[in-house]
Amino acid sequence: MNHKPNSSKMPAVPGYKAAGISCGIKPDSIKDLALVYSETPAFAAGVFTKNRVRSPSVVWSQKALNRAATFRAVLTNSGNANACVGVQGMDDCRTVVSGLARELAISPKEILFASTGIIGVPLPKEKIVEGLPGLVQKLSAKGWKNMARAILTTDLVAKTSVLDYNQGKSAIVLGGTAKGSGMIHPNMATMLGFIYSNAAVEPATLRQALKEANDRSFNCITVDGDTSTNDCVFLMANGQAGNKPIQCGSREYVRFLEALTEVSKDLSTQIVKDGEGATKFVTIRVQGAKSRKHAHKVAQTVAQSSLVKTALFGEDPNWGRILAAVGYSGVPIKEDRTDITLNGAALYTDGSPAAGASQTALRKLMKKKSIVIGIDLNAGDQRAEVFTCDLSYDYVRINAEYTT
Amino acid sequence: MNHKPNSSKMPAVPGYKAAGISCGIKPDSIKDLALVYSETPAFAAGVFTKNRVRSPSVVWSQKALNRAATFRAVLTNSGNANACVGVQGMDDCRTVVSGLARELAISPKEILFASTGIIGVPLPKEKIVEGLPGLVQKLSAKGWKNMARAILTTDLVAKTSVLDYNQGKSAIVLGGTAKGSGMIHPNMATMLGFIYSNAAVEPATLRQALKEANDRSFNCITVDGDTSTNDCVFLMANGQAGNKPIQCGSREYVRFLEALTEVSKDLSTQIVKDGEGATKFVTIRVQGAKSRKHAHKVAQTVAQSSLVKTALFGEDPNWGRILAAVGYSGVPIKEDRTDITLNGAALYTDGSPAAGASQTALRKLMKKKSIVIGIDLNAGDQRAEVFTCDLSYDYVRINAEYTT
Repeated sequence: MNHKPNSSKMPAVPGYKAAGISCGIKPDSIKDLALVYSETPAFAAGVFTKNRVRSPSVVWSQKALNRAATFRAVLTNSGNANACVGVQGMDDCRTVVSGLARELAISPKEILFASTGIIGVPLPKEKIVEGLPGLVQKLSAKGWKNMARAILTTDLVAKTSVLDYNQGKSAIVLGGTAKGSGMIHPNMATMLGFIYSNAAVEPATLRQALKEANDRSFNCITVDGDTSTNDCVFLMANGQAGNKPIQCGSREYVRFLEALTEVSKDLSTQIVKDGEGATKFVTIRVQGAKSRKHAHKVAQTVAQSSLVKTALFGEDPNWGRILAAVGYSGVPIKEDRTDITLNGAALYTDGSPAAGASQTALRKLMKKKSIVIGIDLNAGDQRAEVFTCDLSYDYVRINAEYTT
Repeated sequence: MNHKPNSSKMPAVPGYKAAGISCGIKPDSIKDLALVYSETPAFAAGVFTKNRVRSPSVVWSQKALNRAATFRAVLTNSGNANACVGVQGMDDCRTVVSGLARELAISPKEILFASTGIIGVPLPKEKIVEGLPGLVQKLSAKGWKNMARAILTTDLVAKTSVLDYNQGKSAIVLGGTAKGSGMIHPNMATMLGFIYSNAAVEPATLRQALKEANDRSFNCITVDGDTSTNDCVFLMANGQAGNKPIQCGSREYVRFLEALTEVSKDLSTQIVKDGEGATKFVTIRVQGAKSRKHAHKVAQTVAQSSLVKTALFGEDPNWGRILAAVGYSGVPIKEDRTDITLNGAALYTDGSPAAGASQTALRKLMKKKSIVIGIDLNAGDQRAEVFTCDLSYDYVRINAEYTT
């Protein structure tokens, strides 16, 4: 049993099979086609990029979630984002999804689809369609690792997480995988997150849970502030655990939401740690805000400041850049009530640099791989956390030197 | 006569004297104290940082503009921002301004004050006060170059601009100086702009003109998206030209606004060209928007994208990153109606990559020092321009390696 999220174990979830293969979108037989299949019809929910420019694969899945009641499969290709290619994008999408529906003997409407990779280049649909029989053949309860690898683009490592807990006599499992938000090759990549569960959950409850968990995990990370055309997070629940269906507002919902949030946070922090060129994992923890929205806005603004991120890379305990970012966040903060800490040590208190803060001690703190910047607005009791990484030479190198 | 803004000529304006000296805030006798003095009472206007964390020097000048009718002097120190130092900041401000008022035999209320440099360190007010007699002594019609140097921090070059034109028989001159928005040493620096004129302009008209010109110049530049605690732009007009006072809505106003906008644009583009680590000067030109606000928001979002800026540094004609930034700007754009050009060459048209765009030709265009990214939203007739630079290794080096 794994009551805490486990990122080293295979995220196998009862009642699902997974597979990942190479179909030739990427060179050198690198895996680029991933499938997760639920043995029985499952409920599903999704959250999507807010970018106005979005891949037809995203549009397909949004529509599918609106029109079908249950789902059987999530197909993902990497190496091509199927974005910015004109009307052809949706046609290609239909061809691929119909192909998979035939192989699995299900309806195309029961399939969710995600794409990630190069944009502006038509989807190599023939390669995908030709790869589908082999992909379906590979489906197994042991295919999760290959599946997790097949959704990656510039990520250095696969990201998985699994957790289980009991609801009465039912063992509920949540398992997921994600890929990173570093944007590249040659245009951009994408953040994708997929979480599967054997729990029985009412559809509206599933949507609510994903929204809440997402607001505290995938929506709390930033690498470079850019939002892709292809970002999406899917949650599927097939009821195989045999538990009494979870409904909003119940004690069981609270437990499920907690588990979902933990898995989502585990996956999203893995994304940040694998951010392009990242040398540090940084938590921006804001408290004392009037509202959670204020707290999140301040945290997000600090996390996106190029000046703060270069200071973190340079291991400089530069509270001035942090305070300035707090100041331009748009939240009505008071400078003389704002406190800033670095891994617990006071940097700025009562409108002045913290008296007696030893530069030597602060510099030593900055050398740690994991940095927590605490910001107390002293204006209320709401809080929020955002996770980010530093801005290094390697970020510039990866994004400047890799050309079309 | 200079009917076009001239950045190589000394920005001397009739009826004013200027001086710049070293008072010891910076090491090695680097100039750090600047003064411009109007021989007769002048009207003045100012625009200020929107950061909630602001230097007492900024607060002083905002209050001065609200309570006094006319002004005689603008004092600037560099090397210390007088920011984030607690209540002491305003006391130090009063000490310095009162000292200058005594030297010039004017009221402290007639003085505008700006500071730029290190934050979180108390203003070395004794050094400034001791330097004031020497500064006043140096005031002359030839002191503009020293003044322009004394307001700099990490800027590589001084930035000046001067222009004149006739209103009837009166020769109207506008001259100004600015310092850059690269943020550093050890916390941040600031964007400052000062424009002086001998024109006679009604006070309300002066405020309106500065607001309008600023919206089309200093507010249209971005180096790293960070907003300082000390940003300000001042405009002074002392009426020495003897022209009929300029009033809002008149033909004379249109001409004055045009001249002021040209000088402001000249100064603000000099700031971008001298941005930290900048290797390219980039214009983001948006047209076909429903409103100017939409156009500006799209341009600003593209100009602030780290992915777009690293692609510019890498000389990669990466329209995908540009289109994605347009998409997440918050403006309701339509992907299939958006056109993107690079120095006039089509990159993206009608929802698809431009057919026949030669990668070799595009790569050659990207090698130019000056890049114009054109974005047509095809949704209206409004336009906006934002000026920025690329994101280079040197930006990271300057901001990461320079530590407190």
